[in-house]
Amino acid sequence: MALIVQKYGGSSVADAERIKSVARRIAQAKDEGDQVVVVVSAMGGTTDELVKLAYQVSEHPSDRELDVLLSTGEIVSSTLLAMTLRDMGYKAISLSGAQAGIRTDAAHSRARILKVEAKRVVKELEKGRIVIVAGFQGITDEMDVTTLGRGGSDTTAVALAASLGAGVCQIYTDVDGVHTADPRLVPEARKLAEIGYEEMLELASYGAKVIHPRAVELGELFNIPILVASSFTDSSGTLIHGGVSMEVRNRVRSIAHDLDVAKITVVGVPDRPSIAAAIFQPLATAGISIDTIVQNASVEHITDLTFTVTRSQLAKAMRLVEPIAKSIGARECVSDAKLGKVSIIGTGMQNTPGYAARMFGALSEQGINIQLIATSEIRITCIIDEAKVKDAVRALHRVFETEVVE
Amino acid sequence: MALIVQKYGGSSVADAERIKSVARRIAQAKDEGDQVVVVVSAMGGTTDELVKLAYQVSEHPSDRELDVLLSTGEIVSSTLLAMTLRDMGYKAISLSGAQAGIRTDAAHSRARILKVEAKRVVKELEKGRIVIVAGFQGITDEMDVTTLGRGGSDTTAVALAASLGAGVCQIYTDVDGVHTADPRLVPEARKLAEIGYEEMLELASYGAKVIHPRAVELGELFNIPILVASSFTDSSGTLIHGGVSMEVRNRVRSIAHDLDVAKITVVGVPDRPSIAAAIFQPLATAGISIDTIVQNASVEHITDLTFTVTRSQLAKAMRLVEPIAKSIGARECVSDAKLGKVSIIGTGMQNTPGYAARMFGALSEQGINIQLIATSEIRITCIIDEAKVKDAVRALHRVFETEVVE
Repeated sequence: MALIVQKYGGSSVADAERIKSVARRIAQAKDEGDQVVVVVSAMGGTTDELVKLAYQVSEHPSDRELDVLLSTGEIVSSTLLAMTLRDMGYKAISLSGAQAGIRTDAAHSRARILKVEAKRVVKELEKGRIVIVAGFQGITDEMDVTTLGRGGSDTTAVALAASLGAGVCQIYTDVDGVHTADPRLVPEARKLAEIGYEEMLELASYGAKVIHPRAVELGELFNIPILVASSFTDSSGTLIHGGVSMEVRNRVRSIAHDLDVAKITVVGVPDRPSIAAAIFQPLATAGISIDTIVQNASVEHITDLTFTVTRSQLAKAMRLVEPIAKSIGARECVSDAKLGKVSIIGTGMQNTPGYAARMFGALSEQGINIQLIATSEIRITCIIDEAKVKDAVRALHRVFETEVVE
Repeated sequence: MALIVQKYGGSSVADAERIKSVARRIAQAKDEGDQVVVVVSAMGGTTDELVKLAYQVSEHPSDRELDVLLSTGEIVSSTLLAMTLRDMGYKAISLSGAQAGIRTDAAHSRARILKVEAKRVVKELEKGRIVIVAGFQGITDEMDVTTLGRGGSDTTAVALAASLGAGVCQIYTDVDGVHTADPRLVPEARKLAEIGYEEMLELASYGAKVIHPRAVELGELFNIPILVASSFTDSSGTLIHGGVSMEVRNRVRSIAHDLDVAKITVVGVPDRPSIAAAIFQPLATAGISIDTIVQNASVEHITDLTFTVTRSQLAKAMRLVEPIAKSIGARECVSDAKLGKVSIIGTGMQNTPGYAARMFGALSEQGINIQLIATSEIRITCIIDEAKVKDAVRALHRVFETEVVE
């Protein structure tokens, strides 16, 4: 008897009909003889409604209270799913994050899981029950409720799978897997049957929304195979795992894009030590996540420093950076909120020259100007005009499609 | 520095504006130097919406899961209230029933409080915080969430007041206190400044909706004064306590009525031992609460047995009673769902003859037929046609008004 962990996202449980459909899918897994643990997100739209309520009573809702408030969304969906399964004749029980033993630090709204004490989950499984766990939430040592921030339910699922020694963690969502590019942009994009953790991590970090990078990281750490599949179809999905064969690793795996990119350039920065720290430390303290950083070679000890943030954090970042720029004697700060990112990702690149040149050539042929370039061992990213992202993804998919392997 | 417990009902926190208004009221108590614990119900309408959701996925929602689902309603309102107070510059924290130490038995949907382990509440009070507790809910020894059933939040408030040694438990609701009769029926009804526990218990049990009998019972047991007042006005409310003076006790205190009455008569019952048990045991097992029971004197070993239930339980009760009636050789079962109850209540009646006669006379003058009569030491109840209840209450208020004392 195998143990599997399934996770269903908010759109998969958005109303009573979809909850019933998800319940049938869970029942099928149980019928096949597996022990089943299910992690569930809040019903689609619920979290937004709760946030709206909070802002109706408070301009700056307390993080601690907001976490408790938001955690109710997943509790509602988990109980409804348990009721549905019981109505179908299955033994099922819902558990909150606290009851499932998801212990976190006290960093409200973006807590990290410290450990999973899954005694109660194990006890319920031993009674033959399907265990439905409210995702996205945990509890501190002081018994205060926390939420895990973005990608929280994916992370709950993988953490539980690791703790319980599950054979696989299945992430059910509204797309049917990981593709060679976003099928909405590239109709001929193909679904990947499998992908390695590192490649998936880069893909997820550089724009693919199908699974959160935190969950992929945790999967890699504990070597838990993660299946990403649709909750609406029976298609087979994409398996993220560590054993992807050498043969198919040596290629471009997929093309990622991200439309949520803004750029800040500090112009005319005196090139001396500690300047970068002076600029980035306050941003880190404010919780602003910096993505790409580029510093040009300096001319007469003066340089330009450019970095990217998400669009929603641009205004806050500018408010922090402008006085610093002034104090260190920089000329000015300029920003651009209408940018996008395209990336080619594949483990082949680290040993094979020429990928960058082919990528830049493909973009050049489309008349696309590259504003920033950033690379990792298995990824090349270009930051370009937002309006050109669609053309760029299509062109790159054409150029690399012969090697994109399903 | 005194400690007070306040409770706000669902209509008092139905939207953001009302939550802010309640927060101002709480802040005022805090400003006066008191330690304040607040128990809050779910925002008006929330519980109904959650129940509706449950029945969309399940014909017979599991009690255990329904309790977890419904408990989220009070968690939402408690966090919103804590956020509002923090926004106003007050230190405040929300606690779930579990965090507040409300320990109950495992009778889901109608759990009884076994004890209150209020360590966390005390700790937060010592930090100078206003503590907002989610009402209506508790937790079992197995750490499963329960709800307390009807009157649950009132009961939470009084139990916390008893456990913390509060000077008073203030129940804020949408009426401004306890009256000599329902002011919607009797415009000249007057508000009572005070009332004893026993009288309030009878009033609440026989139709006054202002506070649940469970909470009154608990207040009497631990001798906690309970103030019932409006959350919308500054009027002084009614104090329920044990020290009501002898002088004013010797009167009719108030007239209660209840429109939710249905009657079942088992006709032609053989008058022999164990018949009553045969009829009522299955009803008790099914959780049907029987109110008044009347058995006529038997003629030739045949009698009629009549009892009342709430209207919503009539169909279920009939389904249970009909086969039993048949098996014990009764002639038939008849029911009437269109009944009401009127009661006069006052500690004076136990030593003073003539109250019953005056009550029956007043009803008779209105041409009202009395179907059943039931009494306690401090109450006389008549069951009459539903359509006559309004006239009956008015007539009784007129007859006894000279002695109804504010």
